[in-house]
Amino acid sequence: MDPVMTQEMTRVEPRTLKGFQDFLPADISPRRQVLNAIERIFRLYGFAPLETPALEALDALLGAGGEETNKELFRLESPEQEPIALRFDLTVPFARLMAQYPAELKPPFRRYAIGPVWRADKPGPGRFRQFTQCDIDIAGAPEPAADAEIVAIMGAIMAALGVTDYAVILNHRKLIDALLESVGISEEARQKHVLRIIDKLQKVGEANVRRELGPGRVDDSGDPIPGAGLEGATIDAIMGLIAVTGETRAEVVANLEQTLPDSEIAAEALADLREIDAALGALGVDEAHGRFVPSLARGLDYYTGPVFEMILPSAPEFGSVMGGGRYDELVARFLDRRIPATGMSVGLDRLMAALDYLGVLPEPEPSAEALIVSLGNVPKSEALRAAAELRQAGIRTEPYFGEKKGMRHQLSHADRRGIPVAVILGEDELAQGVVAVKDLLEGKRKREDIADHETYRKAGKTSQVTINREDLVSTVRSMLNA
Amino acid sequence: MDPVMTQEMTRVEPRTLKGFQDFLPADISPRRQVLNAIERIFRLYGFAPLETPALEALDALLGAGGEETNKELFRLESPEQEPIALRFDLTVPFARLMAQYPAELKPPFRRYAIGPVWRADKPGPGRFRQFTQCDIDIAGAPEPAADAEIVAIMGAIMAALGVTDYAVILNHRKLIDALLESVGISEEARQKHVLRIIDKLQKVGEANVRRELGPGRVDDSGDPIPGAGLEGATIDAIMGLIAVTGETRAEVVANLEQTLPDSEIAAEALADLREIDAALGALGVDEAHGRFVPSLARGLDYYTGPVFEMILPSAPEFGSVMGGGRYDELVARFLDRRIPATGMSVGLDRLMAALDYLGVLPEPEPSAEALIVSLGNVPKSEALRAAAELRQAGIRTEPYFGEKKGMRHQLSHADRRGIPVAVILGEDELAQGVVAVKDLLEGKRKREDIADHETYRKAGKTSQVTINREDLVSTVRSMLNA
Repeated sequence: MDPVMTQEMTRVEPRTLKGFQDFLPADISPRRQVLNAIERIFRLYGFAPLETPALEALDALLGAGGEETNKELFRLESPEQEPIALRFDLTVPFARLMAQYPAELKPPFRRYAIGPVWRADKPGPGRFRQFTQCDIDIAGAPEPAADAEIVAIMGAIMAALGVTDYAVILNHRKLIDALLESVGISEEARQKHVLRIIDKLQKVGEANVRRELGPGRVDDSGDPIPGAGLEGATIDAIMGLIAVTGETRAEVVANLEQTLPDSEIAAEALADLREIDAALGALGVDEAHGRFVPSLARGLDYYTGPVFEMILPSAPEFGSVMGGGRYDELVARFLDRRIPATGMSVGLDRLMAALDYLGVLPEPEPSAEALIVSLGNVPKSEALRAAAELRQAGIRTEPYFGEKKGMRHQLSHADRRGIPVAVILGEDELAQGVVAVKDLLEGKRKREDIADHETYRKAGKTSQVTINREDLVSTVRSMLNA
Repeated sequence: MDPVMTQEMTRVEPRTLKGFQDFLPADISPRRQVLNAIERIFRLYGFAPLETPALEALDALLGAGGEETNKELFRLESPEQEPIALRFDLTVPFARLMAQYPAELKPPFRRYAIGPVWRADKPGPGRFRQFTQCDIDIAGAPEPAADAEIVAIMGAIMAALGVTDYAVILNHRKLIDALLESVGISEEARQKHVLRIIDKLQKVGEANVRRELGPGRVDDSGDPIPGAGLEGATIDAIMGLIAVTGETRAEVVANLEQTLPDSEIAAEALADLREIDAALGALGVDEAHGRFVPSLARGLDYYTGPVFEMILPSAPEFGSVMGGGRYDELVARFLDRRIPATGMSVGLDRLMAALDYLGVLPEPEPSAEALIVSLGNVPKSEALRAAAELRQAGIRTEPYFGEKKGMRHQLSHADRRGIPVAVILGEDELAQGVVAVKDLLEGKRKREDIADHETYRKAGKTSQVTINREDLVSTVRSMLNA
């Protein structure tokens, strides 16, 4: 048998890869409305879009995020046999751009990017191998006020989405560095190791964090987790530092000052936090919506100063739906000079799940405002002419095509897609120069209002009108506006 | 040395992979405006968005597009070691969805999708390994009128982009099938082979096409190209068929009828073309903008009936910027029944290049409407407060942050980003309750108008006003509206 024929007869099982998602009509309209709201805020704050490819040279990505992301890269080869990989975030590609195009992207530069990233993670509820990030970054701005702007945007997005119970929590990585330096630990690798351990606080609890800061521990599966080898007094000091709280941001800073050793790096971190506090005030971010939380660590290695995370107290199980921080050294990965930068990323998939849980997802929009229903032998060209007229007037219109042609099928298609108005073309009616226009939402509402369908029918209420063909556009428009 | 430290000291060469593109500010704003125009048209015609992941199981893609696309797949492995690949188009994933979600996507269904696709092609001018497609498809619609709608949308997009000199050319694949069947060739594989040869007409010329339809030929590099092995008379008949022309679509159909053998399949194809002609008329697609061209073949194997392509007579070197066709068997690749479907794809990257060539690219939009310039020791919080007020009023605003703080640097930043208004905060002025607002575009225009800069200065013209601090929003708004 012909090989092509054989191939055609083998049916392929239609399936979505593990950890990946298809977005169907019910999900996609709210998702796009949320994306549009996010993009509107990004633009309002003066950010310009940039786009980079999905694939990057492997060496550009490897080691940029840390051990975890190294392991999670989707790796492949270019046609020229170079090792390449799918990007795991939008920040590393932005750092590459800043290094690669010094003239076009002369700092300061504010960019936003919205797009998919890939991580070969273990999939789970709300954890996907392809997910969408919405990022903003300000490069070339050393001022802590720039960090405050990022935090204000995180809040503005939640407000635009109708969420009031949210808080952006902030910390400064140099607080821990200051503490470690005071006991003689100044190697970056060890400092980062300590941060990674603190980052697990929520997941593994205080006792396990203490063990990992010290000699290490054995996890639930029996695997040994090597420790950071710190002394008991240092561990106590760290645990004391990350437990610092206060009623206001200023109070947290004051309390941190009491706790920290007196050093240059400590003074720097505290000064940054004070400037951020003032800037947040100027931007209208109140104490409830922007808090200093010294236990916040953030997983990625590239952060160098302030770090931030969005939490939703009414939906804690969704974890952080946005997060970011300052990464003053990342561009230097690609360039022989430093370009200070700060930014944040919205995890769209987690955010959507949280909005759904909070009951504030936008209503799905129908795919069309009007459906042209053709009955009997009405020529297709009549339906197309009516559709063309409505579209000319800006009304989103679908002429019904399909294998099943009965009126019932056509109307249930409108119902399934949420299309609010049906224009019904009948042969005799067209000959008389008239068409029927039916308000499907009004009809539905009436049927729901009046419990007894018979009562409704007997009341002679109708949501359908017969009009002159030339009044089509004005009738549909007024029905849509009603 | 610590391995982490070594890694950090190795600078990574910032580079874009061969065949890939970064989109910088100058390109991206026009690109997004074009994308928005396309999406607006898709929605006006009643299409709903769907999204699928970048990665698909290899068996879903392999063989769906044909030999060429098989070779061009970016292949990799899932964490579970399954063979997977980046999608090469948006049509095959749509066919998968239609098979996988019969309840949610009950036909008829109109969907659009906009996103990147990947082909490990040889890169060249306008040919990229990642490129963006904008697709529409109507599934479950067997009517040729559905094909006509697709063609009308292709035209509506060009019109919306300000291009009038365009034509959608159409053909029907069954015309060639009818001719081949009349000489006893009915195997699909051979029919497709003939179509692939005809598809090369523009590239290799008539003489080489004749050779490939017959015994084969040797190409420029000396490689043999096997032929389809048709007889001379059949080759003459094919060349005669694809040369058929006419003043109108109806005339082309009449001339085709004269040329074709009298058979069921020929009658079917001609009837389809007649229905498409009538539907195009009803949709307002005139003879110049929708033409029947029997030599059109289209490269992909999955087309089964009408095929279409957008050509730009004033920019022929850009080839086809949109193309599509009917693919009644593709869903059956994933499902045990047929779902007829038709659709088209816009190649955004090629379209952008063609629009640029034609001089109709939209103007780039600035990243912000107002820049807050702070001089001397003005506290950052003053700049942030002004920015917050303007944003509250919907004005896209950037407060200047950056390492270089001079007035000249801040204003040249505004100039570089095309920001039209600068709000200048000075220490003394703020103390007096006033700020300066500068119309940067007006200033630029005046400098350009008046050739002699001295004349301009002496005329005492200024594009800068000093206003009360509380009039900030209204002043900036009226400057933007002017």
